[in-house]
Amino acid sequence: MIQGSLDVFEKVMDLAKRRGFIWPTSECYGAVAGFIDYGPLGAMMKRRVENIWREFYVIREGHYEIECPTIAQEAVFIASGHVKGFSDKMCQCPHCKEYLRADHVAEAGNIHNASTMKNEDLAAAITSYICPACNEVLGNVAVFNFNLMFSTTIGPGSQRIGYLRPETAQGMFVDFSRLLRFYRDKLPFGAVQIGKSYRNEISPRQGMIRLREFTQAEAEIFVHPDEKNHHPSFKRYADYSMPLLTYIQQQNCEDPVEITMREAVDRGIIANEYVAYYVALTHDLLVTIGIKPERLRFRQHLPDERAHYATDCWDAEVFSPRFGWVETVGIADRTDYDLKAHSGQSGTPMTVFIQYEEPKKTERRRIIPNMSVLGKQYRVKAKSVFAALEHATPTPDGADVEVDGEKIHIPADLFEVRDEVIEVRGEEIVPHVIEPSYGIDRMCYAVLEQAYDEDIADGESRTVMRLSPNIAPVQVAVFPLMNRDGLDTLAKDIITSFHARGILAEYDDSGAIGRRYRRQDEIGTPFAITVDYESKENNTVTLRSRDTMKQVRIAITDLPGTVDALVKGNIPFASLTP
Amino acid sequence: MIQGSLDVFEKVMDLAKRRGFIWPTSECYGAVAGFIDYGPLGAMMKRRVENIWREFYVIREGHYEIECPTIAQEAVFIASGHVKGFSDKMCQCPHCKEYLRADHVAEAGNIHNASTMKNEDLAAAITSYICPACNEVLGNVAVFNFNLMFSTTIGPGSQRIGYLRPETAQGMFVDFSRLLRFYRDKLPFGAVQIGKSYRNEISPRQGMIRLREFTQAEAEIFVHPDEKNHHPSFKRYADYSMPLLTYIQQQNCEDPVEITMREAVDRGIIANEYVAYYVALTHDLLVTIGIKPERLRFRQHLPDERAHYATDCWDAEVFSPRFGWVETVGIADRTDYDLKAHSGQSGTPMTVFIQYEEPKKTERRRIIPNMSVLGKQYRVKAKSVFAALEHATPTPDGADVEVDGEKIHIPADLFEVRDEVIEVRGEEIVPHVIEPSYGIDRMCYAVLEQAYDEDIADGESRTVMRLSPNIAPVQVAVFPLMNRDGLDTLAKDIITSFHARGILAEYDDSGAIGRRYRRQDEIGTPFAITVDYESKENNTVTLRSRDTMKQVRIAITDLPGTVDALVKGNIPFASLTP
Repeated sequence: MIQGSLDVFEKVMDLAKRRGFIWPTSECYGAVAGFIDYGPLGAMMKRRVENIWREFYVIREGHYEIECPTIAQEAVFIASGHVKGFSDKMCQCPHCKEYLRADHVAEAGNIHNASTMKNEDLAAAITSYICPACNEVLGNVAVFNFNLMFSTTIGPGSQRIGYLRPETAQGMFVDFSRLLRFYRDKLPFGAVQIGKSYRNEISPRQGMIRLREFTQAEAEIFVHPDEKNHHPSFKRYADYSMPLLTYIQQQNCEDPVEITMREAVDRGIIANEYVAYYVALTHDLLVTIGIKPERLRFRQHLPDERAHYATDCWDAEVFSPRFGWVETVGIADRTDYDLKAHSGQSGTPMTVFIQYEEPKKTERRRIIPNMSVLGKQYRVKAKSVFAALEHATPTPDGADVEVDGEKIHIPADLFEVRDEVIEVRGEEIVPHVIEPSYGIDRMCYAVLEQAYDEDIADGESRTVMRLSPNIAPVQVAVFPLMNRDGLDTLAKDIITSFHARGILAEYDDSGAIGRRYRRQDEIGTPFAITVDYESKENNTVTLRSRDTMKQVRIAITDLPGTVDALVKGNIPFASLTP
Repeated sequence: MIQGSLDVFEKVMDLAKRRGFIWPTSECYGAVAGFIDYGPLGAMMKRRVENIWREFYVIREGHYEIECPTIAQEAVFIASGHVKGFSDKMCQCPHCKEYLRADHVAEAGNIHNASTMKNEDLAAAITSYICPACNEVLGNVAVFNFNLMFSTTIGPGSQRIGYLRPETAQGMFVDFSRLLRFYRDKLPFGAVQIGKSYRNEISPRQGMIRLREFTQAEAEIFVHPDEKNHHPSFKRYADYSMPLLTYIQQQNCEDPVEITMREAVDRGIIANEYVAYYVALTHDLLVTIGIKPERLRFRQHLPDERAHYATDCWDAEVFSPRFGWVETVGIADRTDYDLKAHSGQSGTPMTVFIQYEEPKKTERRRIIPNMSVLGKQYRVKAKSVFAALEHATPTPDGADVEVDGEKIHIPADLFEVRDEVIEVRGEEIVPHVIEPSYGIDRMCYAVLEQAYDEDIADGESRTVMRLSPNIAPVQVAVFPLMNRDGLDTLAKDIITSFHARGILAEYDDSGAIGRRYRRQDEIGTPFAITVDYESKENNTVTLRSRDTMKQVRIAITDLPGTVDALVKGNIPFASLTP
């Protein structure tokens, strides 16, 4: 086991590059930091991760996916606050001209809360610090805010500024009215998006962990503010338990405590059932794609770390020997912040009409003018007088109104005051939003890193990627023992039967069987089939498990169904009789 | 049947907006031309189209998918020619200031080949033409080239120009060396990409047909230039026939002719087996997602329409009553143009070593100096003299060489000339590229437009989207006859059994059954299930076909398997016994 090894990052990235998981982008022109290519195996694995995400959120939860453009007009990001506030603190080294994250320089020098300091104070604090790029003392530098959105212009004449979205979430907020109609004007409902987001990082140096172009999977669940403690399916996860690291435990330097979701909500550790539900669902999902529970924790944001509008926020963090605890998913209660912001900026109401179970009776006072008398008296002004009278506060003496700056007294006998009781059937409310936000690239890095292993097979050391079968790019390999005597055609027929079922099977007839196993072990193929001379006699083949290296003989006709069930995790390999 | 109707575009786009297929983007801020949102049903349908594409290209053909960033550095597009040449001819109306496609203005006035005219000539030609935006006579306008790439800058300090890719193809070319190694240095191989591409259109006005941000699915198949007539699976499509509209037929104003792929290649109508294979595969794929064959044709590019490097190019065109014949897929033989361009720009060789079946013998002349004598004579210069001698042309008299500008004569007895026969094991060749390139948004528009229908159901007119079941967003609807007596719980259990199998099932218990059918008909749900009182007695339900409106009774336990088979088209509805 190499889990504690310090250089697992180098080892797994070397394998990833060599075998076609992850490549530097446009390498022949010199790769650009913050961008990666998913090679043939990496792209396949990533798509399987995304599809498992969809099984949870779209199929099971019923939160439909939408797809908005990655370029959006400026107004969207003015409302969201990104134009004004989505920036990092930057300075430029006066010696080597390298752009630096000023807060990172300060933090490396043990200044805490550098990210919340004023720019001038931060600049003053780092004068004696050393540039990490050239090792000269920085001296006097200016610290300024660098907006992290990529900008472009839409159409000719540079008329219209556009930004590459820094998150997919805004699409769901901007489409709120249409979504509400799609869900027939009823809360709660959710919508999701999986797609590219962009952040023009100042100096990204952490491989797949900090990318300028990355893939997010975000869900926005819209819920009545008074119903956040009544998730309709909460019982699914009420008894689900996991280690939670609350902000109080962090402040007291205590360890996380294993606790059920029911208890976490009841004791006020997690703000409400909705947040708890998606915390548990996230744990469930991450374990399903192969993240080891012992390398996974849920950490609550500290009060000063939380966005000002969020009432509660939890990060799913995955442990990496290289990067420490890496934020991989965030689950936040964003309240009504986003809808109010877009509603205010656009002038479009973003509310839901909630009908009361019983209409409520409420009193209303109406003032009804004597139209014929007042009409004759005020002629062209009459309409304005009537309108002003509606909002007047009458006394027994009459009412004073103001029309076009002129004060007018209307005697009490020229209008009637009626106190009415009316029925109110419901009210317009602004929903609250619960947002689970997943970083797909970080999930992919985590499963690659955790899958990397070295052991001994057939007396030789082997490298094996212990990827969960449900995300392994190649699902089964098929080897003819010899490349002749009909073994090759039989193997190819088996391949075709897999493809018909949508199972990705790879044919390999080159080299010794042991070497072919090693090749598949290294890319994480969970199952391998050998077609031998016995296969021609009795229509059976051997099926081998990557992890245990055990083999069973199985009828060729059973292969597609059995491998499908193995890949989906519906049956364990051990259940097959040898 | 409304197929000939002129306003099917308006009707289908109205339905698409109302029911959640396609929405204007960021509508609350005023939609931006050239961008659309896929709503919940549209995004689901689009993903099903993409996944069928993957079944053909990735699973069956074995062309692995890769995923490159949508932003790439400038060098990539200098090599590809996009920085210099990817532009449209633009002018600005002097009256209303609207930007116009100058070639479109000219073509509307019956000037042909406007796109190949010089800018000055085009400007002169349109002076008397009318601005389509304000109807004023244009007069003297300047015509200039507007580059259609969206540009941005990568990192702070605007140091580095980046472009949003105008096509996904360049990713496969730039990654050629890595792909070649992944495929173990053997031709042919293919790689594909499905993702966003961007073109900053001057004035897009055609809904989903001309988008500034759109989705492409592109395959690049790398093949030995001498092997283009030997596709290893050609027999799959050799007898596949379809109407082809050759460039000669177009020049002669003749109709397309139905022909098999075998005959098209043999008669030289299609350039080679590879192009023919992907033409047929494209026809197969488009029909599979529901494009009607009678609305589909394959048109060969005219010689002056073809890119200068392409030897043959065919467009799959789909007929729309609104837009005419719309180019939806292009299949081109791009020769070695792209690899040579990137190899030249980057200095990276992009060749494949092809081993000869038998090593070839070839003669080589070597000149071997008498080292000891010449070494003493020329001392420090000796190395240069030896090197020069290797490339000299000796006469019986000796050899003349030039070293550092000095002419030196080497007498014939100070070197030996050896004529050797050597074995050459193979050669480096630059592969050719066959490229099928699909516009996913246009495919989605085509299936929506062709699916739209109105007919009479239960004595009332209904709107029905006759989407192919394999791309319908909701695959089955489940209705409890009454929302009580356990019918609702039974219906919800059926929903859960569908979800476990990955089938998207929608529950609806509101309104009369007829109204629920209409709602599902309008979004193209192919099958609907009603749970009635008999269901509680004998565990059967009714299953209804959207198109025939026929119903059969079926056991609840058979539902997931049967609906799965119906959706995939493995069994016809008519095969179920009523």
